[in-house]
Amino acid sequence: MLNRRLLAWLLAFAALGGSPVQAEDGYELWLRYVPVADGPLLASYRQAITHVALEGDSPTLTAARHELERGLRGLLAADIPFVDRPTGAGALVVGTPAGSATVRALGLTADLEPLGPEGYLLRAATVEGRPAIVVAANTDIGALYGVFHLLRLIQTHQTLDGLSLASAPRIGLRLLNHWDNLDRTVERGYAGFSLWDWHKLPDYTSPRCTDYARANASIGINGTVLTNVNANATVLTERYLRKAAALAGVFRPYGLRVYLTARFSAPIEIGGLGTADPLDPGVRAWWRAKADEIYRLIPDFGGFLVKANSEGQPGPQDYARSHADGANMLAEALAPHGGVVMWRAFVYSHEVPDDRARQAYDEFRPLDGAFADNVLVQVKNGPIDFQPREPFHPLFGAMPSTPLMMEFQITQEYLGQGTHSVYLAPMWKEVLEADTHARGPGSTVARVVDGSLDAHALTGVAGVANTGTDRNWTGGHLHQANWHAFGRLAWDHELSPADIADEWLRMTFTNDPAFVRPVQDMMLASHQACVDYMTPLGLHHLMAVGHHYGPGPWVDAQDAGRPDWSSVYYHRADAHGLGFDRTPAGSDAVGQYHPPVRDRFASRETTPEDLLLWFHRVRWDDRLPSGRTLWEELVHRYSRGVEAVRGMQRTWAAMEGKVDAERHRDVRLFLDIQEREARWWRDASLLYWQSFHGLPIPDGFEPPEGTLDSYRNRRDLYVPGLGV
Amino acid sequence: MLNRRLLAWLLAFAALGGSPVQAEDGYELWLRYVPVADGPLLASYRQAITHVALEGDSPTLTAARHELERGLRGLLAADIPFVDRPTGAGALVVGTPAGSATVRALGLTADLEPLGPEGYLLRAATVEGRPAIVVAANTDIGALYGVFHLLRLIQTHQTLDGLSLASAPRIGLRLLNHWDNLDRTVERGYAGFSLWDWHKLPDYTSPRCTDYARANASIGINGTVLTNVNANATVLTERYLRKAAALAGVFRPYGLRVYLTARFSAPIEIGGLGTADPLDPGVRAWWRAKADEIYRLIPDFGGFLVKANSEGQPGPQDYARSHADGANMLAEALAPHGGVVMWRAFVYSHEVPDDRARQAYDEFRPLDGAFADNVLVQVKNGPIDFQPREPFHPLFGAMPSTPLMMEFQITQEYLGQGTHSVYLAPMWKEVLEADTHARGPGSTVARVVDGSLDAHALTGVAGVANTGTDRNWTGGHLHQANWHAFGRLAWDHELSPADIADEWLRMTFTNDPAFVRPVQDMMLASHQACVDYMTPLGLHHLMAVGHHYGPGPWVDAQDAGRPDWSSVYYHRADAHGLGFDRTPAGSDAVGQYHPPVRDRFASRETTPEDLLLWFHRVRWDDRLPSGRTLWEELVHRYSRGVEAVRGMQRTWAAMEGKVDAERHRDVRLFLDIQEREARWWRDASLLYWQSFHGLPIPDGFEPPEGTLDSYRNRRDLYVPGLGV
Repeated sequence: MLNRRLLAWLLAFAALGGSPVQAEDGYELWLRYVPVADGPLLASYRQAITHVALEGDSPTLTAARHELERGLRGLLAADIPFVDRPTGAGALVVGTPAGSATVRALGLTADLEPLGPEGYLLRAATVEGRPAIVVAANTDIGALYGVFHLLRLIQTHQTLDGLSLASAPRIGLRLLNHWDNLDRTVERGYAGFSLWDWHKLPDYTSPRCTDYARANASIGINGTVLTNVNANATVLTERYLRKAAALAGVFRPYGLRVYLTARFSAPIEIGGLGTADPLDPGVRAWWRAKADEIYRLIPDFGGFLVKANSEGQPGPQDYARSHADGANMLAEALAPHGGVVMWRAFVYSHEVPDDRARQAYDEFRPLDGAFADNVLVQVKNGPIDFQPREPFHPLFGAMPSTPLMMEFQITQEYLGQGTHSVYLAPMWKEVLEADTHARGPGSTVARVVDGSLDAHALTGVAGVANTGTDRNWTGGHLHQANWHAFGRLAWDHELSPADIADEWLRMTFTNDPAFVRPVQDMMLASHQACVDYMTPLGLHHLMAVGHHYGPGPWVDAQDAGRPDWSSVYYHRADAHGLGFDRTPAGSDAVGQYHPPVRDRFASRETTPEDLLLWFHRVRWDDRLPSGRTLWEELVHRYSRGVEAVRGMQRTWAAMEGKVDAERHRDVRLFLDIQEREARWWRDASLLYWQSFHGLPIPDGFEPPEGTLDSYRNRRDLYVPGLGV
Repeated sequence: MLNRRLLAWLLAFAALGGSPVQAEDGYELWLRYVPVADGPLLASYRQAITHVALEGDSPTLTAARHELERGLRGLLAADIPFVDRPTGAGALVVGTPAGSATVRALGLTADLEPLGPEGYLLRAATVEGRPAIVVAANTDIGALYGVFHLLRLIQTHQTLDGLSLASAPRIGLRLLNHWDNLDRTVERGYAGFSLWDWHKLPDYTSPRCTDYARANASIGINGTVLTNVNANATVLTERYLRKAAALAGVFRPYGLRVYLTARFSAPIEIGGLGTADPLDPGVRAWWRAKADEIYRLIPDFGGFLVKANSEGQPGPQDYARSHADGANMLAEALAPHGGVVMWRAFVYSHEVPDDRARQAYDEFRPLDGAFADNVLVQVKNGPIDFQPREPFHPLFGAMPSTPLMMEFQITQEYLGQGTHSVYLAPMWKEVLEADTHARGPGSTVARVVDGSLDAHALTGVAGVANTGTDRNWTGGHLHQANWHAFGRLAWDHELSPADIADEWLRMTFTNDPAFVRPVQDMMLASHQACVDYMTPLGLHHLMAVGHHYGPGPWVDAQDAGRPDWSSVYYHRADAHGLGFDRTPAGSDAVGQYHPPVRDRFASRETTPEDLLLWFHRVRWDDRLPSGRTLWEELVHRYSRGVEAVRGMQRTWAAMEGKVDAERHRDVRLFLDIQEREARWWRDASLLYWQSFHGLPIPDGFEPPEGTLDSYRNRRDLYVPGLGV
């Protein structure tokens, strides 16, 4: 029976012209629907799902149908018939009470109501007296999300017996931010070039755009900002809006809304006005007309993301107006259409501050309450800039009257870029779980972001995308895990990084526990490894200038262009010690946190060791709790990071044969690069610190391979990710 | 039997983790090995090939083995065993007399000898008393080429009964020229970005590089110039040479040698010298040492391609030396290692000439005989610059003592760029078959290039690549045909464009004659269609400035930067007429051709109508042989071109269902773009010509859609292909 069916299916596939010799190139991401290899389990799935009862043909339900066709044909190695109504045992019923008579008859309204417009139920149920599986939701998009969840259960070999679960997102806006330029370069992109082929749009949309939308929908991402925060007003011209509208049309069935970045000076650059002053009536009218035009072309347009008065971008301060003035002007234009403004808090002025870590807080906190209802302030996870480890941003918990949107960086600008395998979920989780104490204990960053702490209905989280034209989307195969984990945490920040990794590995590679367990462990330890070999003990912003590739602790104001773009500004090393004093005796950045947090960070004893040098100056020969001096601890940690990568190499080498040769080779070669670059970071950093104090490398540690000069003189050309 | 075997194979495939739901995305190019659908034919192939006897394990033979495994498993839907020696009927014997005892025993030496190092024999033979198929060659690479030929026979459903053929290339160097920059932008590239990921090299090479080499080997291409002719000396630094060496290592088993472009001023830029004078002993020593260094890293390095003293590139004329002086200096450095210099004849000086079409001839002809033995002069097919149609370049036939290498442009800089489906083989064939009369009738360009006319052993042909990171390699699926046709014509210029198209369509899409015939006809007519809607009757160089996308007949010296970069320089339209007088009464460019050709082009009556305005000025109201005036003929031809594209649309629409939906959709959308842009060319051009004479569009023709101003004022931003 199995063989006959499988044969029929395989022959059908061959007849469709499918090629039998495709290598595993990673294109399918975690939506990899290979036959369930466990015979009894396969039989149980086939018994549970003999046909699909899916009523309706909206674009979203059609997408759900296509996904089920593809997924079930692959996973169950059978062509499962699609019908409107169940025809016997084993129906998979998909739909909404409004659209499906079968779902309506199940009386799920009360259960569905709290799940909102995006949630869904998965149930093993009895339908017309026969066993069935039900995917029910209030909306078609909820049903599509439920379909992806069901497929995930099968992909990860979970039983459908007694299935009963409900799911709804904890955060409303779950967005990718693409720092993509119109010439297809990607700022901080390490996976090729932009997925948006602007030149061929709107006349041609690549099938890849559909697969992009599928991938996002499968993890619950519901919005995408197409363009770089360092914005180009051209995208707001009619010609380019039509191009964006073509993408929106491809994405729409998958619940993925399009957003754009708004260049604040667009009224001047493409509108022909003499000013972009947000209080100027002509400027306001221009933005209102522009919003009207956008919504005529893209009826479900999401809104604007804005970087203003930061790193040279224009903004309201150019006209002596506040960030709120600027944001509210755009919000006014979007409000009639239901759009939002996401105003970034990553700002710093032309004057070099005493401590850049303080700046966003100092500028934005006074504006709490001043923003329009459809404005979110988008705050990076930490106060500097996506460093390997930062304390949580003090704005979280400091603006209770303003919806604060979290901005994570999925692309690894500061964490090894295109080749280092660093699983970011533990880092994000660390931030989400951090307690701001804004309303007493338990006031976690996650509760600020999901709106539960301050009762905000408008909530959001953004991740700076790591996608590009590389066939596997993210450059490295293991980099895919970060896109996946971002979406999963955006949907439900209660999920654990371990569970997300487990699920991702099963879907992407294999369910073989001899593979999943060790590689999951490897992933979970990879972030700390990166912190150790790059910036241990709370060090930060020590990378090479410009492209940020490799170590550059020696970068000074002259190299960098301004002091707070340099490394020496942040580490403050001298003959005596190392670290940035942010206690009240120093910049008092700790004062931006609520008292319990402030006090913990203000004291060296209670500051987590992983953040020690972020908040404190420590002498080279000071003893740490380990009993090692600071210098010894640094050597220990840098070396531990390198050793951890070597452990990853060994773990991965042992996986040979458990996964396809193509992806195994790719990851292996990337780990080799990572090991070499971990040593580069370790050796260059240690030699540089040593130049301040002259202490020897303690016994038992590898001596650095090169000289300090060899590292300082190294020049890397054509590093990806700079854009143009 | 079929079913059991097929099942086993399909299951094996599934077990390998192959995904059953890969869409046809064009990645496999013409190396698409789908099961032979014709039952009796499949049976005959299976009878003819029951096992493969392939002795030896050189990298090239291993490549041949992998290709056979992949190809036969796909085409025959069976796993064919591999052995050293035949074990019964149906052996496919592959190898060389030197490496295979079985081949040696066949006594093929006399037959193989004339086929040289790259040729091969395919024979149905009797081996040890049993029927066998033999692929024999003098070298392993010849055997690999033979394997690709055999697979092609099966892909195109040709019988193996009585198989007996021999093949050897007519031209020695068959090269792709990549105009790829180190930042991965591609000058005149319309298929994404560069395939070479310089940043990750040499540590990581993508599997795609192997597939690139496979594709090239399958059509006989044996060299690739990795870098842009507008060269960057950085690629000659040790660090980048190591990167190039990594690519060379991937390509080597496939007989594909790596070449680089040499920036003439490299001794100054990366060598620290004060001069790049080719007669300076220090400069000569620097290049010798550089060549030695390159060959230490890349033992089979092919040589240098050089663009010097052209469009701002440095060159020997900067030091009052000749092109020969420059080329010979590099040749001297490469000669000990067997490398060649390919010195481009596409030059023009800082002074604007009376007729740029004359310039290469005037500069290079006097140098005939002055070049070292390992120098080829690389000449574009026509005297201007890859226009939709040009007469053959007058240098062909004018430098009998110098090997002239043909430079074709596969990428469609002037023929619709990324989206127009234009099959270029007819254009190339037209040039190859043109008779230079250099040594009397029959002195074709092909015979100049293949060395037979002037007894040159060193011969070459280059094609400017149309490949990029787009999944289907070339942007458009039909664009793949031009890469394929270039390789096939480079191997054997006697092949017909029709046969090449037939073969390519069968391999790439389907053997269904209801598809192959009409699409082949469509391809064969597509070049004339493009000429008609862009530059009919010998018009040339009328494109928009800079990116060359779309019509720009109005571009003048001020727009373009210099007169001979403008359009008006070439069309010379005024109230009276149109065209460039290149007769003796004009620039006398015709005088650069041998007398029979010169006389034919000098007379309006004997000039082919397709080249009329290239050589002659014609009054708007002059009657042409058609009975139409020049103006009427232009309207007729431009419109005919648009109509031809509409015919292509209809032809392709009728193919729905005969090929996979994915590729059908892509081609359809591209044809829609082409139809719109053909109208753009027609309308903008006609309105512009009309502005000189005010004559009406004749009855029966569509009026232009826009106004002349609307076309002139159009600005296209972010057009691909400019590089940086």
